[in-house]
Amino acid sequence: MKKIGVLTSGGDSPGMNAAVRAVVRKAIYHGVEVAGVYSGYQGLIEGNIKNLEAGDVGDIIQRGGTKLYSARCEEFRTEAGQLKAIEQMKKEGLEGLVVIGGDGSYRGAMALTKRGFPCVGVPGTIDNDIPGTDYTIGFDTALNTVIEAIDKIRDTATSHERTFIVEVMGRDAGDLALWAGLAGGAETILIPEESYDIDDMIDRLQKGRKRGKRHSIIIVAEGVMGGNELKARIKEKADIETRVSVLGHIQRGGSPTARDRVLGSLFGARAVEVLLEGVGGRAIGMKNHQVVDYDMTEAFTAEHNADMSLYTLSKELAI
Amino acid sequence: MKKIGVLTSGGDSPGMNAAVRAVVRKAIYHGVEVAGVYSGYQGLIEGNIKNLEAGDVGDIIQRGGTKLYSARCEEFRTEAGQLKAIEQMKKEGLEGLVVIGGDGSYRGAMALTKRGFPCVGVPGTIDNDIPGTDYTIGFDTALNTVIEAIDKIRDTATSHERTFIVEVMGRDAGDLALWAGLAGGAETILIPEESYDIDDMIDRLQKGRKRGKRHSIIIVAEGVMGGNELKARIKEKADIETRVSVLGHIQRGGSPTARDRVLGSLFGARAVEVLLEGVGGRAIGMKNHQVVDYDMTEAFTAEHNADMSLYTLSKELAI
Amino acid sequence: MKKIGVLTSGGDSPGMNAAVRAVVRKAIYHGVEVAGVYSGYQGLIEGNIKNLEAGDVGDIIQRGGTKLYSARCEEFRTEAGQLKAIEQMKKEGLEGLVVIGGDGSYRGAMALTKRGFPCVGVPGTIDNDIPGTDYTIGFDTALNTVIEAIDKIRDTATSHERTFIVEVMGRDAGDLALWAGLAGGAETILIPEESYDIDDMIDRLQKGRKRGKRHSIIIVAEGVMGGNELKARIKEKADIETRVSVLGHIQRGGSPTARDRVLGSLFGARAVEVLLEGVGGRAIGMKNHQVVDYDMTEAFTAEHNADMSLYTLSKELAI
Amino acid sequence: MKKIGVLTSGGDSPGMNAAVRAVVRKAIYHGVEVAGVYSGYQGLIEGNIKNLEAGDVGDIIQRGGTKLYSARCEEFRTEAGQLKAIEQMKKEGLEGLVVIGGDGSYRGAMALTKRGFPCVGVPGTIDNDIPGTDYTIGFDTALNTVIEAIDKIRDTATSHERTFIVEVMGRDAGDLALWAGLAGGAETILIPEESYDIDDMIDRLQKGRKRGKRHSIIIVAEGVMGGNELKARIKEKADIETRVSVLGHIQRGGSPTARDRVLGSLFGARAVEVLLEGVGGRAIGMKNHQVVDYDMTEAFTAEHNADMSLYTLSKELAI
Repeated sequence: MKKIGVLTSGGDSPGMNAAVRAVVRKAIYHGVEVAGVYSGYQGLIEGNIKNLEAGDVGDIIQRGGTKLYSARCEEFRTEAGQLKAIEQMKKEGLEGLVVIGGDGSYRGAMALTKRGFPCVGVPGTIDNDIPGTDYTIGFDTALNTVIEAIDKIRDTATSHERTFIVEVMGRDAGDLALWAGLAGGAETILIPEESYDIDDMIDRLQKGRKRGKRHSIIIVAEGVMGGNELKARIKEKADIETRVSVLGHIQRGGSPTARDRVLGSLFGARAVEVLLEGVGGRAIGMKNHQVVDYDMTEAFTAEHNADMSLYTLSKELAI
Repeated sequence: MKKIGVLTSGGDSPGMNAAVRAVVRKAIYHGVEVAGVYSGYQGLIEGNIKNLEAGDVGDIIQRGGTKLYSARCEEFRTEAGQLKAIEQMKKEGLEGLVVIGGDGSYRGAMALTKRGFPCVGVPGTIDNDIPGTDYTIGFDTALNTVIEAIDKIRDTATSHERTFIVEVMGRDAGDLALWAGLAGGAETILIPEESYDIDDMIDRLQKGRKRGKRHSIIIVAEGVMGGNELKARIKEKADIETRVSVLGHIQRGGSPTARDRVLGSLFGARAVEVLLEGVGGRAIGMKNHQVVDYDMTEAFTAEHNADMSLYTLSKELAI
Repeated sequence: MKKIGVLTSGGDSPGMNAAVRAVVRKAIYHGVEVAGVYSGYQGLIEGNIKNLEAGDVGDIIQRGGTKLYSARCEEFRTEAGQLKAIEQMKKEGLEGLVVIGGDGSYRGAMALTKRGFPCVGVPGTIDNDIPGTDYTIGFDTALNTVIEAIDKIRDTATSHERTFIVEVMGRDAGDLALWAGLAGGAETILIPEESYDIDDMIDRLQKGRKRGKRHSIIIVAEGVMGGNELKARIKEKADIETRVSVLGHIQRGGSPTARDRVLGSLFGARAVEVLLEGVGGRAIGMKNHQVVDYDMTEAFTAEHNADMSLYTLSKELAI
Repeated sequence: MKKIGVLTSGGDSPGMNAAVRAVVRKAIYHGVEVAGVYSGYQGLIEGNIKNLEAGDVGDIIQRGGTKLYSARCEEFRTEAGQLKAIEQMKKEGLEGLVVIGGDGSYRGAMALTKRGFPCVGVPGTIDNDIPGTDYTIGFDTALNTVIEAIDKIRDTATSHERTFIVEVMGRDAGDLALWAGLAGGAETILIPEESYDIDDMIDRLQKGRKRGKRHSIIIVAEGVMGGNELKARIKEKADIETRVSVLGHIQRGGSPTARDRVLGSLFGARAVEVLLEGVGGRAIGMKNHQVVDYDMTEAFTAEHNADMSLYTLSKELAI
């Protein structure tokens, strides 16, 4: 290949810029030209594509969000949209594409690959929910953002002897809630992967109070229910007052942690290596402490499994 | 005086611990004994009071919340409650009391003072809404927490070209919204002190977009309306999609900034000086860059005025 | 005036970008064109000047350093250099200049003013050492950086029962050491403004240990002596082992605090107002909680006085 | 076993408290009593041992340092010291001990095990240099502290077009320098594991400048040479001015990251499980994304290998 492209797609996640930087510089290192596609698949269709030099990705490794922007694109789901995209890429001389994003972005990348245009996927999402990789870019930063918020809430909870419900992101995957619950010393964690028992939860709250705990924290993944709904149920069931904090969009932003920058760098570089071998349809990941590449289809057909040992341990330690 | 007490009351705020430390050590410095009253006026009534040595307030200057805890207390609003409190203080040999809290806490302190038990008030609240002082302890920390959240949200807003509504604390006072709006580069700030013009707000949003701004941020103080309500109004009026972030309880917590630690130290020390002169019914504050004490009644009868020049400037700079 | 320029000079400080943004947008708000001069007076001489629009200073309010860069410039101290600078400014159509920097930068601004080219100074330095203003842009951020470092060092000091010497910036002014010492709960603060008594310092260390303190922290401003030199003296005098941490350059960087962003915004805007009145030779400052402008000469002829009440209080509270 | 002990030893590292909390609560969960040994092996010899309940380790998961304190202990290296320690433990009814620390601490634990008193080791050190585990508790926090410092230094470096040398911890292991260099976008990384080529380093600096880079950052692990020594060599060799920042002790402190809290929790809990099986002489670690236990002797006889792929990648990306 003589020229490749790179785009970010789906929800932004901290560390995407480190991945973009790695793609660009690794390509240049191998003597390959590289272009940035702006605003995801939408930009691909519209030809919003610019050549990038090594200096263009300087000073971005520490920035949150994505310098290539992101956007949703309904048109790209259609055959017409995909053909337009390929046309644009041909016009720009692109022979391969690195797609940084979540499983939805991977589907688009697979569609292009099947149409003869090789794409490689890099997992960028704070949800850590992509099958085939132990970690995704952005998860570690989001997790630390949640932990900082819990630490702040704990100050207030302790001062006022209160119970707090903290709602974190996670429609289908409980990773963020699980890790944050264990690291934040939460009494109870509610995740989509596990049915919850409201009686047990209330029992734990009441026992904690009797034991002299000045605060209790419940973490709930948004996929289970909203924090305010949980508050209402606890109130109804046991007449316990709780406060709710919905962390929301702050979980997506911020300067990436060291780990997310390293992960982004490793993944971006590997994606270029795989692509330069002329192989498409591969996804990059970290599996058992090794950077790997695997069939991209797995990422949206297999199931992601959260590490349930964290769930068990969290319960044991929150006594 | 031979012995004084100190308590924290109302919503906790970062820097209260610095004030407690200053009260304790300044008293000891002057050869006066000091006791901590736990859980605010409730603890005063119940006699939840313990002697404090210099070492007991070591390593707390950097902690959020309040080591003396806080609580609401209906009983203290009654004569019976206040008489119980005075009885407890006599039992402990307390001759004066430093009350760290907001205007509600000051009312209680004034009631005790009128019953012959001298109290001095120290302004501890993140709202910055106490008349007679330019700053309250906790405001600076809360403000920086809001700013960090806005910086995170901006990452995402820029990446996705979105408009965000950020709801911050402030029932009656717009200080937090004003300062955060200016420091966060917000397009629009809605505060209780100023009627808002939704057409102007929408106009600014649309002009910003035309000018090529990739993100817009609207700060709304909770006292004006909820973030979700504002979202609905904008949607209804102009069919513009916005995202809402309700910052909530994280605004109260966290390790205090340097300024709040210094303010807490200055105020706590001054409170002891005033109290040791045998004077009650005074409030401590910062006025025109000087630590001052003034009639505590002013703090709950006069009106707090937000600095509206920040409002005007913010509008001029958000072009 | 129809067009003005803005430059940053001397050591960079967090919040300079907020000031630049305010200058640019306030000028545009008043219908005046504005140009950025890059790399300080060096850029002025070389004509490294570019027109700035409102959008050019978007997304910089939260960034550390200065987007206009800074540099030392020997040539500008000469008449020849200054005349070249004026020539360049005439070529660009600039009729006035806002100079953001320390007292050295002010001297240059005064020289231009005297040559008939009106300049207004904005105090940007982490040292807080400019006479005529209670605060300079960057001081608050540097102070919080120091405090975070002390908090980290305290963890280790407590765990190992150690005494730490923390060397902070401050050649001639002890403000940073003073505020950091009070906010960080240091046992001893050494500043250029006050002669130190090594026997008293050692006495305090030894008393603290006897009282059961697990850690001791000494803050020394670099202008007094280096941390390693102090360590040697303490070792020699009392055979006490200490550890040294020289904070160094991290004190200049980082995203500005809310206060420094607000200060930068207020000062930058006021500088434009003053300049548009056709007045040169003025410096902007905050005096007794008011934004003021005053004769720039005062800034480099009068003496800066640190707030010594912090010094006294710090000693009283570190018992 | 009916009762076990836990101690922290060697340099403190963030996340040790999470490990202590996990040991205590996991033991209690299994119906086993647990005691904390204060100030490491010194406290063991002196019988500085206290029973711990679940509540005693509440609110410590977020704290830096170690609540059990740490200390060096020469006496424990002798047979007499070790026998005293065993006597004390028998007196307290301890039947096993969890030792949290580095490889030096492991040697002590192995000595006790060989004398019939089973110990299990938990890797707590910021250096990440313990053979048999991919990560140690505290490394991730230290790494992020370094990254934040580099981000701050980069602000200043960019503003002034300077080259900075950042000296980080690491006597024998380059992990911290390697990860920080990659995540911080450093031009050059000097680690003990790799001989350095000063000509290549200078060549890279000069090429970067030609390419228009406004800043260059060199990371040097203290085990290679001091930052000031490197500055002198570069000056001598190529007459390039650099600035030095020695990060020092701040690298050990701070609230632990989410990852270090999770790692501490997982490791502490596993240590209890292993110990309760009556097995001594085992070390806990994370290997290929799994919590494992292995022969403790390996930890101080085998060699730690830094991940040199990070070194190569860093060079490729810093073009």
